[in-house]
Amino acid sequence: MIIELVNTGTELLLGQIVNTNAPFLAARLNELGFSVLYQTTVGDNRERMKNVLKTALERANIVITSGGLGPTQGDITKEVTASLLNKPMYLHEASAEQIQRFFTEHRLCMTDNNLRQAMMPEGAQVIENTCGTAPGVIVEQEATGKVIINLPGPPHELAAMFEKSIVTYLTKRFGVQGAIVSRVLRTYGLGESALEERIKKYISAQSNPTLALLARNGEIHVRITARAASETESVQLINELEGQIQPLLNEYIFGIDEETMEKSVGSLLLARKLTIALAESCTGGLVTSRITDVPGSSQYLLGSIVCYSNTVKTRYVGVPEKIIASKGAVSQETAECMAQGIKERFQTSIGVGITGIAGPDGATENKPVGLVYIAIDGSAGKVCYEHYFKGTRLDIKHRTALATLNHVRHYLLTI
Amino acid sequence: MIIELVNTGTELLLGQIVNTNAPFLAARLNELGFSVLYQTTVGDNRERMKNVLKTALERANIVITSGGLGPTQGDITKEVTASLLNKPMYLHEASAEQIQRFFTEHRLCMTDNNLRQAMMPEGAQVIENTCGTAPGVIVEQEATGKVIINLPGPPHELAAMFEKSIVTYLTKRFGVQGAIVSRVLRTYGLGESALEERIKKYISAQSNPTLALLARNGEIHVRITARAASETESVQLINELEGQIQPLLNEYIFGIDEETMEKSVGSLLLARKLTIALAESCTGGLVTSRITDVPGSSQYLLGSIVCYSNTVKTRYVGVPEKIIASKGAVSQETAECMAQGIKERFQTSIGVGITGIAGPDGATENKPVGLVYIAIDGSAGKVCYEHYFKGTRLDIKHRTALATLNHVRHYLLTI
Repeated sequence: MIIELVNTGTELLLGQIVNTNAPFLAARLNELGFSVLYQTTVGDNRERMKNVLKTALERANIVITSGGLGPTQGDITKEVTASLLNKPMYLHEASAEQIQRFFTEHRLCMTDNNLRQAMMPEGAQVIENTCGTAPGVIVEQEATGKVIINLPGPPHELAAMFEKSIVTYLTKRFGVQGAIVSRVLRTYGLGESALEERIKKYISAQSNPTLALLARNGEIHVRITARAASETESVQLINELEGQIQPLLNEYIFGIDEETMEKSVGSLLLARKLTIALAESCTGGLVTSRITDVPGSSQYLLGSIVCYSNTVKTRYVGVPEKIIASKGAVSQETAECMAQGIKERFQTSIGVGITGIAGPDGATENKPVGLVYIAIDGSAGKVCYEHYFKGTRLDIKHRTALATLNHVRHYLLTI
Repeated sequence: MIIELVNTGTELLLGQIVNTNAPFLAARLNELGFSVLYQTTVGDNRERMKNVLKTALERANIVITSGGLGPTQGDITKEVTASLLNKPMYLHEASAEQIQRFFTEHRLCMTDNNLRQAMMPEGAQVIENTCGTAPGVIVEQEATGKVIINLPGPPHELAAMFEKSIVTYLTKRFGVQGAIVSRVLRTYGLGESALEERIKKYISAQSNPTLALLARNGEIHVRITARAASETESVQLINELEGQIQPLLNEYIFGIDEETMEKSVGSLLLARKLTIALAESCTGGLVTSRITDVPGSSQYLLGSIVCYSNTVKTRYVGVPEKIIASKGAVSQETAECMAQGIKERFQTSIGVGITGIAGPDGATENKPVGLVYIAIDGSAGKVCYEHYFKGTRLDIKHRTALATLNHVRHYLLTI
């Protein structure tokens, strides 16, 4: 079954946003065994959108649109779909009630144009939106059996609707298509080419499963993709290849699939029944925020202090004034005192201290932007790492956060 | 001049990477006055790619491809372009030498297939790649004056080639196209349809400038886009319309273009010479991290405490134990004590307390997931806001952070 994704929205054509809906849908549809062969983007213009949908319907069996289901005059995707398939629009009472209820529950005031979202092409299957007000729509072209599916544009609404309703519809309506299954080994600490060198043999030999290396925000992901008649067989193929690759990348692999670095750190803390607290300077709370992205993190994270001023470092984290005066706020000694200070004050098993220069200002002759010290204190003793990170202020914060979590992970593995 | 972007690469169809080339090219081309009306993605398949390029050449004057110029058998974009325009391929000696030199300089071993990158369509203009080995190509269709431009896939190679060579080519070959200029008014606090209702008159009347509403992570952006012969004239058109819209949205507008909520809060603190500290529970440091995303934020942020446990709330932020026992950790009273406690301890002008249930666990009969209290304490007195946010744990953290920053912004505007 051939699928074309049609992304609508002038903001995409103007390059104002990056399209994350297309890769999400494409990845999921491939896993379900569908072939996404085309993706097209068109603006909120009736004639051009209609032509694009017409072309899509000629070359694909299923056309999935995203965007343009909202309440404004620029939201025309459903109308264009209806017009292409010669269906009149009508007010779908259940959707209208649903929208009214959403506004009441959120204590918001509903305006008339919100009811545009309840206008549906005749004969369409209306799909509930559990995260927003715009329902989705499935319209079949009787003569050909081809289908247009309209999904909302906001990524979390689209993803929720896809998982809750569209997966079931597609698998029921079009049958099982065999299964492409992927598994991602998330690594950190090896460069892309060094990593490739280690598993070269398997990259050259690949056919099914295939292997791909993807650089992702400082991590390198090794994706293994297998295609077989059933999911079980695909998984079996992946398991075999993973078993061969795993020993070659060992300590660099921190997670599988959706397992983030903070999830991995959290699991290690939980398993060892340890607690943690951080004293963050240049990262400004980012590391703690990432740790708290994991549900249940209150079981091991007691708290943190963001010490953005020297007063907070000395008075509330216990860094001696003379250390800051003699070694500087960005120094190994300060980082170590921060780790020890926060551990003692918050009475945790592990204390972490992070200090550095995120830039663009703050560099001195000997201390460039990007210099960062990360210290850990715990039952395995004190360690401190010096890093020179490149990039913008946000890059440096991000890279420091990732490195910190990875150092903590390695520290925990030794306990 | 109508442009279609054609992105090639099976990894895009599989959803393995996010396409950042399309938004980059679209934004730059619009700035240069070209209209990007279509973007299409197709895999490394000769027949389908040829058909996609054919369709593109029918509906656009200029087709810009990205990807598929590399050395592997899957890199077919140039060949398909040549075949569509009936041009034979030949070995371009200068490119071959360039590629050889690149490998020598980088002490790499060149394999024969690298010379595939020096094969060019007859009559094509070859564009040097200063960041990699695959040259770009410009091929004109004599009969129509239409053009296909092949750019490499790696984003930094594509961007460098575009800026160094393609901009000059396009402006020389197609003349200056006038200038499209956009300005974004970032708003928070009004729903999309309520906002549309307020500026309906201008949305209905739009022609040049155009007006678009874009929902972005809890913010609504109003984009004004003007097209005129020169940038100055476009800016003038935007200024006029902004002057009319501004009074209707007034307090909801927090920033222009790239001005984030945290930037706006920072500017207000700086202008008033005030300092701030936060006690964050459910946001886990996210608000402080966002505040520190702004360069120079150490001038007004002294620090924060992430109080993820009751011990940290009572011992280090000064929330009375009996308040937590009687009202609960998630309550207006606790939030207010957190705001006051952190302000007094860190001796800042403003203290902020945030407590809530980020979920998925932790809800009680009276306190659902998403219930959040945000308190502010300062010279204008104590305020506290109750919110019921929807979504995942990360959504709730994000929405709480945005609401907090906006409450602080409004608080500062009253001082």
